[in-house]
Amino acid sequence: MNKIPQLHDITEASERIKPFIHRTPILTSLSINKITDASVYFKCENFQKVGAFKFRGATNAVLLLNYQDKKQGVATHSSGNHAAALALAAKNMGIKAYVVMPENAPIIKKRAVESYGAEITFCKPSLSARESSLNKLIEKTGAKFIHPYNNFNIISGQGTAAIEILEEYADLDIVMAPVGGGGLLSGTATAVKGVNKKIKVIAAEPKNADDAFKSIKAGHIVPSINPNTIADGLLTSLGDLTFRIISEKVDDIVTVSEKGIVEAMRLIWERMKIIIEPSSAVPLAGILEHGQYFSGKKVGVILSGGNVDLNNLPF
Amino acid sequence: MNKIPQLHDITEASERIKPFIHRTPILTSLSINKITDASVYFKCENFQKVGAFKFRGATNAVLLLNYQDKKQGVATHSSGNHAAALALAAKNMGIKAYVVMPENAPIIKKRAVESYGAEITFCKPSLSARESSLNKLIEKTGAKFIHPYNNFNIISGQGTAAIEILEEYADLDIVMAPVGGGGLLSGTATAVKGVNKKIKVIAAEPKNADDAFKSIKAGHIVPSINPNTIADGLLTSLGDLTFRIISEKVDDIVTVSEKGIVEAMRLIWERMKIIIEPSSAVPLAGILEHGQYFSGKKVGVILSGGNVDLNNLPF
Repeated sequence: MNKIPQLHDITEASERIKPFIHRTPILTSLSINKITDASVYFKCENFQKVGAFKFRGATNAVLLLNYQDKKQGVATHSSGNHAAALALAAKNMGIKAYVVMPENAPIIKKRAVESYGAEITFCKPSLSARESSLNKLIEKTGAKFIHPYNNFNIISGQGTAAIEILEEYADLDIVMAPVGGGGLLSGTATAVKGVNKKIKVIAAEPKNADDAFKSIKAGHIVPSINPNTIADGLLTSLGDLTFRIISEKVDDIVTVSEKGIVEAMRLIWERMKIIIEPSSAVPLAGILEHGQYFSGKKVGVILSGGNVDLNNLPF
Repeated sequence: MNKIPQLHDITEASERIKPFIHRTPILTSLSINKITDASVYFKCENFQKVGAFKFRGATNAVLLLNYQDKKQGVATHSSGNHAAALALAAKNMGIKAYVVMPENAPIIKKRAVESYGAEITFCKPSLSARESSLNKLIEKTGAKFIHPYNNFNIISGQGTAAIEILEEYADLDIVMAPVGGGGLLSGTATAVKGVNKKIKVIAAEPKNADDAFKSIKAGHIVPSINPNTIADGLLTSLGDLTFRIISEKVDDIVTVSEKGIVEAMRLIWERMKIIIEPSSAVPLAGILEHGQYFSGKKVGVILSGGNVDLNNLPF
């Protein structure tokens, strides 16, 4: 069975990527605390380079490439943020990046990937189309595949955001992350449980893309079938690595409505004056729709990204 | 002639209001620096309480009220942010606030003023309607009028944002603020020139509401006639105090197009992932449209506020 990351893999990743990433601020909002009856600490990965936490994992993965891999470049498929992150991480190291993107990815994400100099191949918006395009690409170029989430080094890198939260706020009751493919959640759970087993890790997932919720309940991976959510970063299904880590370390997964996601997103925009993408609003939607778990608690929330198409807002 | 504030009035205001306000962060953006060929330091008053720098002046003014004034409350007219700021400052001290607002003020600003418990009187959107409504209100209540900008204590309070910029970045070449009624600009210029005469103070103003530009050129106050700009915080004309201070201390005023304001606003939203209102984008629009003044320079910019009606965005 493949190895899964441990706390030391994440703390080592923290040191490794530190010169390349932003240490993002942790913000609070008195009015959101009032509304939620909780103390919420938002880790602002929307301010991370490329506008998303994905740059942590991508940077870690690129820094750990061997000499031969560096020569042949890296390749991936991604709905957007991982693609941009890998493109910039590769560019920073002077290596080639090849990206397969679904043709319906948000324009802002397509442009970002282009602007970092990656070579893009567009495909139909399905996992099978992504995978076959990617396989062709890798055969042609010899590039090293960096999976967007089901990858040891990616997961280790994504866990570094939680390490930074706990460095500043050691006494949290709960840490929350959204779950799509599970890379951020796996890294977060490994970091949090490694530092302090008493802190609960609660994931939030759109009801309309609730494969992680179903998978954990069933005890095996239940892939998403035609997920349809505004949280476009959370359309993917768990992989074998992320399923194992999440099964072992995550205390609970709450699911949220589309309306709840838009309301939570709007609340953060209006009260905190920061721009987050819909996927980032899913944990706050979870707090608002499942208040009983969070009332009176100190809750760390990872705001995963801020890449929104301003021409296509839900309000 | 009425007294105008000096540097010590602003540094005293800084100490006075410190327990009540946020010390807002100063953010930078590599991509905006690249686009402008300048190093721009954004003082984020959009993160200030009530979402605007106005809370600084209002808090200073309320803290300096005498016993009798505190008993009878405060009154003002304002298109929005000053009203909200005065309402919250008054609420914090347990005193009454009466506000005259133009009926076409953004809904988000009306709601904010209400939520802070102020008593609102709506009037037609003209300066004469505002003034006559306010006079009636003051006659009835005996409340103390706190002018939104042409007021010694308000100007002193607004200048505290520039003090904070210079504490962190003493070596700026230029400090910029938008100009509407001139309260922020007067406080900023007094602070900057008081600390270091060599730092230039450059204001930015919408072409469609360029009364300050015209007034400084003419050497006397030229009021705005039917100003029509998306920068709804900058519709007002200079007062006698702000005209005198700006004439004496501001190095230049640049005017900007409506298109430039929207583009600058969008640039800040997309690249910095923060929400600013159109008025806040006016200085960056100035940098973009008058590049020759700013190329290669270190520029401090006050982002004045973040109160935007999300149902009515210009993109």
